[in-house]
Amino acid sequence: MTDPRYRQGEIRAPRGTQLNTKSWLTEAPLRMLMNNLDPDVAENPEALVVYGGIGRAARNWECYDQIVATLKNLEDDETLLVQSGKPVGVFKTHSNAPRVLIANSNLVPHWANWEHFNELDAKGLAMYGQMTAGSWIYIGSQGIVQGTYETFVEAGRQHYGGDLTGRWILTAGLGGMGGAQPLAATLAGACSLNIECQQSRIDFRLRTRYVDEQATDLDDALARIKRYTAEGKAISIALCGNAADILPELVKRGVRPDMVTDQTSAHDPLNGYLPQGMSWEEYKDAAQKDPAGTTKAAKQTMAVHVAAMLEFQKMGVPTFDYGNNIRQMALEEGVENAFDFPGFVPAYIRPLFCRGIGPFRWAALSGDPEDIYKTDAKVKELIPDDEHLHHWLDMARERIQFQGLPARICWVGLGQRAKLGLAFNEMVRSGELSAPVVIGRDHLDSGSVASPNRETEGMQDGSDAVSDWPLLNALLNTASGATWVSLHHGGGVGMGFSQHSGVVIVCDGTDAAAERIARVLHNDPATGVMRHADAGYDIAIDCAKEQGLHLPMITTPNK
Amino acid sequence: MTDPRYRQGEIRAPRGTQLNTKSWLTEAPLRMLMNNLDPDVAENPEALVVYGGIGRAARNWECYDQIVATLKNLEDDETLLVQSGKPVGVFKTHSNAPRVLIANSNLVPHWANWEHFNELDAKGLAMYGQMTAGSWIYIGSQGIVQGTYETFVEAGRQHYGGDLTGRWILTAGLGGMGGAQPLAATLAGACSLNIECQQSRIDFRLRTRYVDEQATDLDDALARIKRYTAEGKAISIALCGNAADILPELVKRGVRPDMVTDQTSAHDPLNGYLPQGMSWEEYKDAAQKDPAGTTKAAKQTMAVHVAAMLEFQKMGVPTFDYGNNIRQMALEEGVENAFDFPGFVPAYIRPLFCRGIGPFRWAALSGDPEDIYKTDAKVKELIPDDEHLHHWLDMARERIQFQGLPARICWVGLGQRAKLGLAFNEMVRSGELSAPVVIGRDHLDSGSVASPNRETEGMQDGSDAVSDWPLLNALLNTASGATWVSLHHGGGVGMGFSQHSGVVIVCDGTDAAAERIARVLHNDPATGVMRHADAGYDIAIDCAKEQGLHLPMITTPNK
Ligand SMILES: NC(=O)c1ccc[n+]([C@@H]2O[C@H](COP(=O)([O-])OP(=O)(O)OC[C@H]3O[C@@H](n4cnc5c(N)ncnc54)[C@H](O)[C@@H]3O)[C@@H](O)[C@H]2O)c1
Ligand SMILES: NC(=O)c1ccc[n+]([C@@H]2O[C@H](COP(=O)([O-])OP(=O)(O)OC[C@H]3O[C@@H](n4cnc5c(N)ncnc54)[C@H](O)[C@@H]3O)[C@@H](O)[C@H]2O)c1
Repeated sequence: MTDPRYRQGEIRAPRGTQLNTKSWLTEAPLRMLMNNLDPDVAENPEALVVYGGIGRAARNWECYDQIVATLKNLEDDETLLVQSGKPVGVFKTHSNAPRVLIANSNLVPHWANWEHFNELDAKGLAMYGQMTAGSWIYIGSQGIVQGTYETFVEAGRQHYGGDLTGRWILTAGLGGMGGAQPLAATLAGACSLNIECQQSRIDFRLRTRYVDEQATDLDDALARIKRYTAEGKAISIALCGNAADILPELVKRGVRPDMVTDQTSAHDPLNGYLPQGMSWEEYKDAAQKDPAGTTKAAKQTMAVHVAAMLEFQKMGVPTFDYGNNIRQMALEEGVENAFDFPGFVPAYIRPLFCRGIGPFRWAALSGDPEDIYKTDAKVKELIPDDEHLHHWLDMARERIQFQGLPARICWVGLGQRAKLGLAFNEMVRSGELSAPVVIGRDHLDSGSVASPNRETEGMQDGSDAVSDWPLLNALLNTASGATWVSLHHGGGVGMGFSQHSGVVIVCDGTDAAAERIARVLHNDPATGVMRHADAGYDIAIDCAKEQGLHLPMITTPNK
Repeated sequence: MTDPRYRQGEIRAPRGTQLNTKSWLTEAPLRMLMNNLDPDVAENPEALVVYGGIGRAARNWECYDQIVATLKNLEDDETLLVQSGKPVGVFKTHSNAPRVLIANSNLVPHWANWEHFNELDAKGLAMYGQMTAGSWIYIGSQGIVQGTYETFVEAGRQHYGGDLTGRWILTAGLGGMGGAQPLAATLAGACSLNIECQQSRIDFRLRTRYVDEQATDLDDALARIKRYTAEGKAISIALCGNAADILPELVKRGVRPDMVTDQTSAHDPLNGYLPQGMSWEEYKDAAQKDPAGTTKAAKQTMAVHVAAMLEFQKMGVPTFDYGNNIRQMALEEGVENAFDFPGFVPAYIRPLFCRGIGPFRWAALSGDPEDIYKTDAKVKELIPDDEHLHHWLDMARERIQFQGLPARICWVGLGQRAKLGLAFNEMVRSGELSAPVVIGRDHLDSGSVASPNRETEGMQDGSDAVSDWPLLNALLNTASGATWVSLHHGGGVGMGFSQHSGVVIVCDGTDAAAERIARVLHNDPATGVMRHADAGYDIAIDCAKEQGLHLPMITTPNK
């Protein structure tokens, strides 16, 4: 039997202005789905894997083909439903409705665990959508660079007076998201030591200039770190090995990094985290043959890994979880104080979320990098006095290689997003841009996720686990006229631990698009401000008032 | 401190054609919210409890007041968001978008249990929405009568050659939903013995003619049953007591009912199921003082109750779970074979779901019973050759007292629903009806729920726990222009065990409404046919083909 999830061959999104579908509203999801599987974008495109463990773009190749075929014929008053990567229905809606509605990996809570998911997955009844994999707005490691950069910069502000020169960050995982860490550290001015157990992943990051050099062994790595930090050079170093071997060794040697975190795929013990004493190939094999035993071995290794992180924290090194649920896994293996070090959101990111700021992004459907450079300039023009943002854009242009369709990410918030979206739409209308752009965001955003071990950890009112919010976000984006909307479960932190939603909207230069953009790019971040205001955060309440939001129990603007 | 959830006073929906809001699209949710709390409708309106344990219409009275105030000012291009019974935001959308979007009781799976819910609830951060309580389309016990009737009739067909004369049904629970059982049994031609531990609930059912008589004790009850079954009279008898005391006693005495089921609120051990050896008041008190101990006591009593049900099954009596999750609770208390008797959906209802048939309902916003009688006649006219349906309508008119706004329920499916909705809209336009009607349904419907111990128990492909389906249903109804849409967790079977969605649409007699009705009342049941076709049910696949659905992996109609 051939594996319905494996197919050789290369997929790349069409470029240019020639439509393959009936309009740009359907061309956009078509190109972005294909772009998610571009070999320059996806981690393992032939297995449909985009990033984040087994985060996929479609259930299997037959489903992929059928999604493509259906999009090619979809009318502008029809909506395609995608259920865990399978195209299940086409329904008549209307022109202001989304063209695609997606639900991936959702399970009734009592059954919402990897064990049940893997059972369904084996039967062909499930797909892990991660966040932007199954919702077709992954843009390669760039998507995460700015988030990681913002986190490192904020940590630098809190712990090192805003200057990371001569400092170094210890982390692991150079996958789709984790691969952004070395570059983000460099952009933030720090050296970094990045442990990764697969040489192929290191090669990918070296090739795309996300990491600068590879050390031959631990001694070599430490020597390089010593030299570069002394010279004040922000250079990133990869080291091939298992983090759970290397971290304890560093503790033993008394080495003291300036910051410690981790982005292995700990959220998925069966597919994403290498147990000690194995090669990656042996792990893949063991996962097939003995899923329960392999899961256990991976989680036990995570316990070792987290124990070492806790040691660093005890030394006074700023240590944080980077959103892969490794603390939970270690806790389940008996590391009772696993949650002693904080997650990155409460530690560094929440104040941004309170203003609706998060990983906003856009991609040029033309395929032309010039389109992105022009939007970069437009952002600077419209947000003239944000130095940090200008600095980011300059660095991004200089250092970040496009993967697949040219794209940009910018952490901007309520007010700014709609302004930029409308301006981009104008640029499409006027012909300044050579083709439409799509605007989207990560599911890790201000108003779109409930994830008590990550985005909603330690909410001030204790509402961490309330997931009404992402559901309302998805419903409202649908009601506002987004081009596609998605609702996922288990992204980032794995089955059982999160619910979240995604949104993408097309700027095709029409008036109708402008109206939809104004609504969606206001309402979407506004739900984030609302959620944080409801939890009692002053920054969010102030922002709601400034921006004239109508939150009945909190603030009613004068009409 | 006063309890923010308790307020004396009576709420009834306004009647007539005078608007209290800016249009019928907002008047409708206003009236239906109030109608849910009408003392003739709700089980405990002063505590905001509508039915089903602690199923509420609003988080607390302050939230209720604010929802009302907000609806009064809401524009026809605005959307109100309600989060677990609290009005949290008003956003600009468009005229074809829903006016209200609701998410109730949703929790991230790992935390989706009663313990965490009750903690949040105590802090004022949660509300249990049940199915139609928090989504404002509960219409009193009538809402469930037909479902219960259809179930008893189908059971009669399967086990007794279609004739229940001289037969009797043993059950318990005369609450908001369970109270429909005696009447449904009578309509189906059977006697019934209905055990209920609260005298006040029996009084309510006697007053509204849902139950015929009350027995003084068990001997009296059995004597009456004996007499009426011998005479072939379908009379319902209430008996005050604890089901877990009475069922084992019946087993001991060797009494043999013809059917056994149960509709106590077993889904909520802390608030809805009386432990043995206590009065209801003692139970309420104990729940406050010792939640964990009381929960345990209730679940242990359920184990006794289920053990007795299993005994009846062993005697060959058709025995089924009626959707309150009592088997799961008993299982958790050590009754290993609790799931030996089936749930009512796989046993009797699924073939209907495969054709998109489910508890469709409508209410006359005028308050005028004549409006409902006219729609009854219209249903007969448009569906002329369904004898069973005509019989149901006749009996309903004769035997079912309206509670609150006059309303009707009718199990109809794909094709019929849109036809009826468009006809009702025409009747509003022409003035035949004195005011608009709203059309909705239970969350227990063909395409709107994932609930592995109830609606999706034993799906043929094993996809019981996949909850992408209700999420897609809610997104599609939003995209189709329903008037309000809701997404709930834990209805029927309690926290952790279900996810489901609701939809209501207004027929205000306009062309715009007609377009929305055509879409919503087609798409909504069509998702049910789609879900069952995807699971491989032939009835559903045939129905999809007949009705020209476009299900890309299954059937593509000729365009
Ligand atoms: N913080 C964020 O904003 C954010 C965003 C998205 C994802 N995440 C989470 O970060 C994690 C990484 O995401 P990704 O897309 O890079 O995943 P990925 O699966 O593409 O990459 C994970 C990498 O970790 C490596 N690895 C696994 N076990 C290892 C070990 N013991 N030692 C060293 N290396 C090991 C793997 O070889 C792989 O290259 C995931 O858990 C993801 O959910 C975080
Ligand atoms: N089958 C369906 O279609 C369907 C639909 C909706 C709800 N339900 C489920 O049915 C159950 C009942 O719903 P409801 O709205 O009537 O709830 P409710 O809370 O209004 O009524 C439950 C009744 O059971 C009685 N009761 C509790 N413990 C008892 C005991 N040990 N012995 C005798 N009586 C006892 C209570 O006094 C109460 O009157 C719930 O679990 C609900 O989720 C089923």
